[in-house]
Amino acid sequence: MIVNISLPDNTKYDITIDTLKKQYFDRKVVIVTNPTVSSLHLDYLKEKISAKELSVVTVPDGEQYKNMETIEAILEHCFEHKLNRNSLLIAFGGGVIGDMTGFAASIYQRGIDFIQVPTTLLSQVDASVGGKTGVNNKYGKNLIGAFHQPIAVNIDPHFLTTLPKREFGAGIAEIVKMAVTFNKDFFQWLEKNNLNDEKNIKTAIAKSVETKAWVVSQDEKERGLRAALNYGHTFGHVIENETNYNTYLHGEAVGIGMVMANELAKKIGYMSEGETLRVKHLLEKYDIPTSYKIEDVEDFYEHFFLDKKSLDNRIKFIVPKGIGDCEITDLISKENVIEVLKGFSN
Amino acid sequence: MIVNISLPDNTKYDITIDTLKKQYFDRKVVIVTNPTVSSLHLDYLKEKISAKELSVVTVPDGEQYKNMETIEAILEHCFEHKLNRNSLLIAFGGGVIGDMTGFAASIYQRGIDFIQVPTTLLSQVDASVGGKTGVNNKYGKNLIGAFHQPIAVNIDPHFLTTLPKREFGAGIAEIVKMAVTFNKDFFQWLEKNNLNDEKNIKTAIAKSVETKAWVVSQDEKERGLRAALNYGHTFGHVIENETNYNTYLHGEAVGIGMVMANELAKKIGYMSEGETLRVKHLLEKYDIPTSYKIEDVEDFYEHFFLDKKSLDNRIKFIVPKGIGDCEITDLISKENVIEVLKGFSN
Repeated sequence: MIVNISLPDNTKYDITIDTLKKQYFDRKVVIVTNPTVSSLHLDYLKEKISAKELSVVTVPDGEQYKNMETIEAILEHCFEHKLNRNSLLIAFGGGVIGDMTGFAASIYQRGIDFIQVPTTLLSQVDASVGGKTGVNNKYGKNLIGAFHQPIAVNIDPHFLTTLPKREFGAGIAEIVKMAVTFNKDFFQWLEKNNLNDEKNIKTAIAKSVETKAWVVSQDEKERGLRAALNYGHTFGHVIENETNYNTYLHGEAVGIGMVMANELAKKIGYMSEGETLRVKHLLEKYDIPTSYKIEDVEDFYEHFFLDKKSLDNRIKFIVPKGIGDCEITDLISKENVIEVLKGFSN
Repeated sequence: MIVNISLPDNTKYDITIDTLKKQYFDRKVVIVTNPTVSSLHLDYLKEKISAKELSVVTVPDGEQYKNMETIEAILEHCFEHKLNRNSLLIAFGGGVIGDMTGFAASIYQRGIDFIQVPTTLLSQVDASVGGKTGVNNKYGKNLIGAFHQPIAVNIDPHFLTTLPKREFGAGIAEIVKMAVTFNKDFFQWLEKNNLNDEKNIKTAIAKSVETKAWVVSQDEKERGLRAALNYGHTFGHVIENETNYNTYLHGEAVGIGMVMANELAKKIGYMSEGETLRVKHLLEKYDIPTSYKIEDVEDFYEHFFLDKKSLDNRIKFIVPKGIGDCEITDLISKENVIEVLKGFSN
């Protein structure tokens, strides 16, 4: 299964959803991975990928290491191995590895090629497609980074066989996101089909990737439409930040964030009680958390302003309009938001 | 005088060579500068530029501070002042400030706008145009960076009135580079006219910028033609590196580098003795250094391989073909290069 993505500046690449094919690269290649993925799957990848000169750099596992120090470690490896402008990086891991490898590739000698080989469901359905790269810092998530498109995305469902259940759920959350914001039929299909089934998950990946590719083709740099993919993220980022990135997986925080966004949608009359419950039930079917206790409502609200989606003291919310459509708005009153947040504070 | 630059991906911007006009920006603006430029010209700039919210970040002066630490300091200022995706950076200084401001703008929240207001002759005629941004590290020059085009370049010859003579010469070196590689008529004009004259220098800036804009329009990412602008730089970078970036100004090292490249061109029959002397005399007319003592020829040669223009153990040299044309080649034998280097070792 191949999904093609084509951007206004003529950048094009293929997203292949299939067992990895054997490939030879007539250039220096560096695989960037973490210890977990490496111990489970590096041999599998190395059997498929060969190159003029191949090396591996392993960086610590986890969102808390998604920072400039790790980027410098990746770059250091590239310099030591004398990579040149024609060299290639392969991101082999989840969203964190993909975001960091892409960012390192974007600034090494003003930009070299990279390929995404995502190993988690979350990165397969969302993060690996679209060229957003970056790292976190003390001010928030992905605040330093670049738009740098991969030259290919190879999604091999094989890697999902070893994925912990929680990480699987985190991926489902992003699939649900695509459906709620853009595709009612897909949402209904998700309600009826079990994604633990191998054939179904492949279909769901393809559907999500198609949606993502379409959105990115319309609006690569997130001037408008693409912001809709941040549904659940405005709230989710604050939750991750409040819990020091060590309590929830990104997809889990987004799951809770979508439930919060839906409450806001309900408050302004965009969603019915029934629709918010359908989304919640779908998330709960895969044991994705849907509740969170806000300790300090005002403090939670203030956190929004550090999100880069907040232009000049206006917070941009993505609120669903029923299921399958959504609106990006910065016109929601603080009062309405605070009231919704209060609903999560008891 | 306005030169327009237009890239294949539809990016366009104006390079204005004239006294700065008053401008108001309805967004947050940060001026990035250094203490030297700030003490001489910040008041002048502030009188011309106003914004919704204006702040200034001052970073240490000099090539030795063109590194990731300074980038982090600029970004820190931007985060503290809560810049958003709609904010603007203004690079106010020479090439170092321009390269760093552009790089910071390229990675702050995945890329924000920036404007170049170059204050040195070198940055006015070359560095401020074309979107190359970056920093140095222990492996060499500009090895970490990005292609990120400014939204405008404002070249005000007023700033040249306070420019030290050596820095003026360093700028002339890059003007000579443009003429030798691409424009025989311009070279002859340079031989006949004194650039210390106000009218002449403005003409020379415009001519250089036109050449640069044309080259960048053809080949933004330096896949081919643009590499010609590295004439003198392959040698120059090694000289700068050997002298710890604290002996020669960049343009001075390029001046010496051009003399070395010309010797190489002479060796392979591309330039006559007379032509190499014409270039040398033009440089000497502005007291630009043209000699350098190489201590260890083999070591100097090895340094080439850390330059990012060296693909897989082949060094890319830019050798003039007479005056006004040049060739980019990686086919020059080590023996020929070593012999040329030996000519600089006594």
